[in-house]
Amino acid sequence: MEPDLYDRKCGSRQVLDRIGDRWSVLVVLVLADGTKRYGDLAKRIDGVSQKMLTQTLRALERDGLVTREVHAAVPPRVDYALTDLGRSLLDLLSGLQAWATTHLGEVEAARVRYDARTV
Amino acid sequence: MEPDLYDRKCGSRQVLDRIGDRWSVLVVLVLADGTKRYGDLAKRIDGVSQKMLTQTLRALERDGLVTREVHAAVPPRVDYALTDLGRSLLDLLSGLQAWATTHLGEVEAARVRYDARTV
Repeated sequence: MEPDLYDRKCGSRQVLDRIGDRWSVLVVLVLADGTKRYGDLAKRIDGVSQKMLTQTLRALERDGLVTREVHAAVPPRVDYALTDLGRSLLDLLSGLQAWATTHLGEVEAARVRYDARTV
Repeated sequence: MEPDLYDRKCGSRQVLDRIGDRWSVLVVLVLADGTKRYGDLAKRIDGVSQKMLTQTLRALERDGLVTREVHAAVPPRVDYALTDLGRSLLDLLSGLQAWATTHLGEVEAARVRYDARTV
Protein backbone atom coordinates (compact mmCIF):
# COMPACT_ATOMS: atom_id res chain seq x y z
CA MET A 1 0.00 0.00 0.00
CA GLU A 2 1.29 3.47 -0.91
CA PRO A 3 1.57 5.88 2.03
CA ASP A 4 -1.25 8.43 1.77
CA LEU A 5 -0.93 11.67 3.68
CA TYR A 6 -4.67 12.31 3.30
CA ASP A 7 -5.57 9.10 5.14
CA ARG A 8 -5.80 9.71 8.88
CA LYS A 9 -4.55 6.23 9.68
CA CYS A 10 -1.38 6.57 7.59
CA GLY A 11 1.83 6.99 9.58
CA SER A 12 3.03 9.58 7.07
CA ARG A 13 0.73 12.08 8.82
CA GLN A 14 2.65 11.66 12.05
CA VAL A 15 5.91 12.04 10.16
CA LEU A 16 4.59 15.28 8.66
CA ASP A 17 3.72 16.53 12.16
CA ARG A 18 7.27 15.86 13.29
CA ILE A 19 9.02 17.50 10.35
CA GLY A 20 6.63 20.48 10.34
CA ASP A 21 6.84 21.07 14.09
CA ARG A 22 8.35 24.45 14.98
CA TRP A 23 10.86 23.18 17.55
CA SER A 24 11.90 20.18 15.47
CA VAL A 25 12.62 22.46 12.51
CA LEU A 26 14.73 24.80 14.66
CA VAL A 27 16.68 21.97 16.32
CA VAL A 28 17.48 20.30 12.99
CA LEU A 29 18.57 23.63 11.49
CA VAL A 30 20.90 24.36 14.43
CA LEU A 31 22.39 20.86 14.16
CA ALA A 32 23.10 21.50 10.46
CA ASP A 33 26.26 23.23 11.77
CA GLY A 34 27.50 20.07 13.46
CA THR A 35 27.29 18.37 16.86
CA LYS A 36 25.90 20.54 19.66
CA ARG A 37 25.54 20.20 23.39
CA TYR A 38 22.15 20.49 25.04
CA GLY A 39 23.07 23.89 26.42
CA ASP A 40 24.13 25.21 23.00
CA LEU A 41 20.72 24.28 21.59
CA ALA A 42 18.90 25.85 24.52
CA LYS A 43 20.87 29.06 24.09
CA ARG A 44 20.50 29.30 20.31
CA ILE A 45 16.75 28.64 20.20
CA ASP A 46 15.26 31.65 21.89
CA GLY A 47 12.11 30.93 23.88
CA VAL A 48 12.23 27.13 24.00
CA SER A 49 11.54 25.77 27.49
CA GLN A 50 13.70 23.01 28.90
CA LYS A 51 10.68 20.72 28.83
CA MET A 52 9.92 21.38 25.15
CA LEU A 53 13.57 21.06 24.11
CA THR A 54 13.93 17.76 25.96
CA GLN A 55 10.68 16.41 24.45
CA THR A 56 11.65 17.56 20.97
CA LEU A 57 15.12 15.99 21.17
CA ARG A 58 13.67 12.73 22.47
CA ALA A 59 11.11 12.61 19.64
CA LEU A 60 13.77 13.40 17.03
CA GLU A 61 16.01 10.68 18.48
CA ARG A 62 13.14 8.19 18.51
CA ASP A 63 12.32 9.00 14.88
CA GLY A 64 15.93 8.36 13.89
CA LEU A 65 16.73 11.96 12.93
CA VAL A 66 19.13 12.79 15.76
CA THR A 67 21.69 10.87 17.82
CA ARG A 68 22.30 11.48 21.51
CA GLU A 69 25.66 10.71 23.07
CA VAL A 70 26.36 10.95 26.78
CA HIS A 71 30.00 11.56 27.77
CA ALA A 72 31.24 10.65 31.22
CA ALA A 73 32.16 13.96 32.78
CA VAL A 74 31.09 16.00 35.76
CA PRO A 75 28.51 17.24 34.97
CA PRO A 76 27.78 14.69 32.19
CA ARG A 77 28.08 16.17 28.70
CA VAL A 78 25.33 15.28 26.25
CA ASP A 79 25.97 15.78 22.54
CA TYR A 80 23.36 15.81 19.80
CA ALA A 81 23.99 15.37 16.07
CA LEU A 82 22.00 14.71 12.92
CA THR A 83 21.83 11.21 11.47
CA ASP A 84 21.92 10.69 7.70
CA LEU A 85 18.13 10.61 7.78
CA GLY A 86 18.10 13.92 9.65
CA ARG A 87 20.54 15.43 7.16
CA SER A 88 18.26 14.38 4.31
CA LEU A 89 15.72 16.88 5.70
CA LEU A 90 18.06 19.86 5.66
CA ASP A 91 17.31 21.19 2.19
CA LEU A 92 13.59 21.08 2.84
CA LEU A 93 13.79 22.72 6.24
CA SER A 94 16.19 25.40 5.00
CA GLY A 95 13.59 25.98 2.30
CA LEU A 96 10.88 26.48 4.92
CA GLN A 97 13.15 28.83 6.83
CA ALA A 98 13.92 30.82 3.69
CA TRP A 99 10.23 31.00 2.72
CA ALA A 100 9.22 32.18 6.21
CA THR A 101 11.81 34.93 6.29
CA THR A 102 11.43 36.00 2.64
CA HIS A 103 7.63 36.20 2.68
CA LEU A 104 7.16 37.50 6.21
CA GLY A 105 6.35 41.01 4.95
CA GLU A 106 3.71 39.74 2.51
CA VAL A 107 2.06 37.60 5.18
CA GLU A 108 2.00 40.50 7.65
CA ALA A 109 0.53 42.84 5.01
CA ALA A 110 -2.17 40.27 4.19
CA ARG A 111 -3.10 40.07 7.88
CA VAL A 112 -3.47 43.82 8.17
CA ARG A 113 -5.77 43.83 5.11
CA TYR A 114 -7.82 40.91 6.44
CA ASP A 115 -8.22 42.41 9.90
CA ALA A 116 -9.25 45.80 8.47
CA ARG A 117 -11.90 44.07 6.36
CA THR A 118 -13.40 41.95 9.11
CA VAL A 119 -13.52 44.33 12.08
CA MET B 1 16.59 44.09 10.64
CA GLU B 2 16.86 40.64 9.08
CA PRO B 3 14.09 38.21 10.07
CA ASP B 4 15.56 35.65 12.47
CA LEU B 5 13.69 32.38 13.00
CA TYR B 6 15.68 31.75 16.18
CA ASP B 7 14.38 34.94 17.82
CA ARG B 8 11.13 34.28 19.65
CA LYS B 9 9.84 37.76 18.91
CA CYS B 10 10.35 37.46 15.14
CA GLY B 11 7.17 37.04 13.08
CA SER B 12 8.92 34.48 10.89
CA ARG B 13 8.37 31.96 13.73
CA GLN B 14 4.62 32.38 13.39
CA VAL B 15 4.91 32.01 9.63
CA LEU B 16 6.85 28.79 10.15
CA ASP B 17 4.08 27.51 12.43
CA ARG B 18 1.51 28.19 9.74
CA ILE B 19 3.42 26.57 6.86
CA GLY B 20 4.46 23.59 8.99
CA ASP B 21 0.99 22.97 10.42
CA ARG B 22 -0.44 19.58 9.42
CA TRP B 23 -3.85 20.85 8.29
CA SER B 24 -2.44 23.87 6.47
CA VAL B 25 -0.07 21.61 4.52
CA LEU B 26 -2.90 19.27 3.53
CA VAL B 27 -5.26 22.09 2.50
CA VAL B 28 -2.62 23.79 0.36
CA LEU B 29 -1.72 20.47 -1.29
CA VAL B 30 -5.37 19.72 -2.14
CA LEU B 31 -5.78 23.24 -3.57
CA ALA B 32 -2.76 22.63 -5.82
CA ASP B 33 -5.28 20.89 -8.10
CA GLY B 34 -7.37 24.05 -8.46
CA THR B 35 -10.35 25.72 -6.80
CA LYS B 36 -12.25 23.51 -4.34
CA ARG B 37 -15.46 23.83 -2.39
CA TYR B 38 -15.48 23.53 1.36
CA GLY B 39 -17.13 20.12 1.10
CA ASP B 40 -14.48 18.83 -1.33
CA LEU B 41 -11.75 19.76 1.13
CA ALA B 42 -13.61 18.16 4.04
CA LYS B 43 -14.04 14.95 2.06
CA ARG B 44 -10.46 14.76 0.75
CA ILE B 45 -8.74 15.41 4.08
CA ASP B 46 -9.62 12.37 6.14
CA GLY B 47 -10.05 13.05 9.84
CA VAL B 48 -10.23 16.85 9.82
CA SER B 49 -13.07 18.20 11.96
CA GLN B 50 -15.31 20.95 10.65
CA LYS B 51 -13.95 23.23 13.36
CA MET B 52 -10.31 22.58 12.43
CA LEU B 53 -10.93 22.93 8.71
CA THR B 54 -12.78 26.21 9.19
CA GLN B 55 -10.03 27.56 11.48
CA THR B 56 -7.30 26.45 9.10
CA LEU B 57 -8.98 28.03 6.07
CA ARG B 58 -9.53 31.28 7.96
CA ALA B 59 -5.89 31.40 9.04
CA LEU B 60 -4.68 30.64 5.50
CA GLU B 61 -6.96 33.37 4.14
CA ARG B 62 -5.76 35.84 6.77
CA ASP B 63 -2.13 35.06 5.94
CA GLY B 64 -2.81 35.72 2.25
CA LEU B 65 -2.26 32.13 1.09
CA VAL B 66 -5.85 31.27 0.14
CA THR B 67 -8.83 33.19 -1.28
CA ARG B 68 -12.41 32.56 -0.21
CA GLU B 69 -15.29 33.33 -2.57
CA VAL B 70 -18.93 33.05 -1.60
CA HIS B 71 -21.39 32.45 -4.46
CA ALA B 72 -25.06 33.35 -4.08
CA ALA B 73 -26.82 30.01 -4.24
CA VAL B 74 -29.06 27.95 -1.99
CA PRO B 75 -27.23 26.70 -0.02
CA PRO B 76 -24.41 29.27 -0.54
CA ARG B 77 -21.38 27.84 -2.35
CA VAL B 78 -17.98 28.72 -0.93
CA ASP B 79 -14.91 28.25 -3.12
CA TYR B 80 -11.31 28.24 -1.96
CA ALA B 81 -8.23 28.71 -4.12
CA LEU B 82 -4.53 29.40 -3.70
CA THR B 83 -3.17 32.90 -4.13
CA ASP B 84 0.19 33.45 -5.86
CA LEU B 85 1.75 33.52 -2.41
CA GLY B 86 0.08 30.19 -1.60
CA ARG B 87 1.29 28.71 -4.87
CA SER B 88 4.85 29.78 -4.04
CA LEU B 89 4.70 27.25 -1.19
CA LEU B 90 3.73 24.28 -3.33
CA ASP B 91 7.19 22.97 -4.18
CA LEU B 92 8.22 23.07 -0.54
CA LEU B 93 5.07 21.39 0.75
CA SER B 94 5.16 18.73 -1.96
CA GLY B 95 8.72 18.16 -0.81
CA LEU B 96 7.55 17.64 2.78
CA GLN B 97 4.85 15.27 1.55
CA ALA B 98 7.35 13.31 -0.52
CA TRP B 99 9.81 13.13 2.38
CA ALA B 100 7.11 11.92 4.79
CA THR B 101 5.93 9.17 2.46
CA THR B 102 9.40 8.14 1.22
CA HIS B 103 11.01 7.92 4.65
CA LEU B 104 8.04 6.59 6.61
CA GLY B 105 9.52 3.09 6.75
CA GLU B 106 12.88 4.35 8.08
CA VAL B 107 11.18 6.47 10.75
CA GLU B 108 9.00 3.56 11.87
CA ALA B 109 12.01 1.23 12.01
CA ALA B 110 13.91 3.80 14.12
CA ARG B 111 10.99 3.97 16.55
CA VAL B 112 10.91 0.22 16.99
CA ARG B 113 14.67 0.22 17.74
CA TYR B 114 14.33 3.13 20.18
CA ASP B 115 11.39 1.60 22.03
CA ALA B 116 13.14 -1.78 22.30
CA ARG B 117 16.18 -0.05 23.79
CA THR B 118 14.36 2.05 26.37
CA VAL B 119 11.74 -0.35 27.74
